[in-house]
Amino acid sequence: MADETFKKCVDFHGHICPGIAIGFRAAQILMDRLGVRKAPDEELVAVVETDACGSDAIQVMTGCTFGKGNFIFRDYGKHAFSLTDRKQGRTFRVCLRPDALKTDPGHLPLMEKVRNEKATPDEMEQFRQLQQERIRKVIEADPESLFKIEEVLPFIPPTARIVTSEICEVCGESTKADLLRVVNGRKVCIPCWQQKCVIT
Amino acid sequence: MADETFKKCVDFHGHICPGIAIGFRAAQILMDRLGVRKAPDEELVAVVETDACGSDAIQVMTGCTFGKGNFIFRDYGKHAFSLTDRKQGRTFRVCLRPDALKTDPGHLPLMEKVRNEKATPDEMEQFRQLQQERIRKVIEADPESLFKIEEVLPFIPPTARIVTSEICEVCGESTKADLLRVVNGRKVCIPCWQQKCVIT
Repeated sequence: MADETFKKCVDFHGHICPGIAIGFRAAQILMDRLGVRKAPDEELVAVVETDACGSDAIQVMTGCTFGKGNFIFRDYGKHAFSLTDRKQGRTFRVCLRPDALKTDPGHLPLMEKVRNEKATPDEMEQFRQLQQERIRKVIEADPESLFKIEEVLPFIPPTARIVTSEICEVCGESTKADLLRVVNGRKVCIPCWQQKCVIT
Repeated sequence: MADETFKKCVDFHGHICPGIAIGFRAAQILMDRLGVRKAPDEELVAVVETDACGSDAIQVMTGCTFGKGNFIFRDYGKHAFSLTDRKQGRTFRVCLRPDALKTDPGHLPLMEKVRNEKATPDEMEQFRQLQQERIRKVIEADPESLFKIEEVLPFIPPTARIVTSEICEVCGESTKADLLRVVNGRKVCIPCWQQKCVIT
């Protein structure tokens, strides 16, 4: 757990939790299978099937980040992550096994209490210990017992396009030209277009 | 430019560019106006109106990250970012001024050449210098000359919900229960539901 890269994930995410550990292991395994390092630009492409904590570790580890266009979200509600290396044209996917992390029946109600600031100090400590134990299990687990790991059909989307900006003729804000709408012959941004009443 | 927090943004993003500098300054200014620090959990909420480079610096600086549910994307194509402090119930928004960064007419074609690996070494160096100059301007600019800065109506979305997972009855993968669909009385995940032909 003292791994420097895991610390970076926790630092970025803002706190330590089992979810960030799952994403960390997923990224490690995917990068290992492809034999790649963090992408300075768009060399790799990640697909995350969850917007939960683990996706933050995918960003930190792989360099596939929201702001680089090589981080794609599919809202499937699964702890599943894919990574493509454009150069090799190969994609691997990992999906957390349902039995990888058995949940203690009292865990979710306890988590709710902690989140709603209704936990006693004892309950806070109990929750902290449960979380620590889950994190340890994830970090130490054998890859195959944690995830279903498979090479899948390569997913190679186009790289990000460079688009010039133009001024919205209503609010005057600079806007990506391909997102401007034309209303009564005037080029307007989406928020101004949504309030059509103000366009005369 | 030697600022440690800016280095963190660049490290996360994978490379240095004017976009990451714009996001860095935006986050600095928003956090300063609200008087807040990086959010360990969901204390702050960011809205980014672009999926360009700057949004990565927003994640690093504010702690509003894709995987924490307090990072909201609106695809308006603007270098505009908002930050809410839930505790104060206040939201500030910054939007890059159209005249803040004058673009040299040769800049975009040169960028295309570099991206497509068709630039000569001289052109590469010319591009690097142009980028460095733009980054310097952004980092050194006065906040008001760089951005339109305003307090806007507070935007306070609900915090992330905790949802249990259930098994998709087709692929056997663990799935957020509220994303399962019911087909012929069986609970199936979205990818399996999209391939209905396999469900009997």
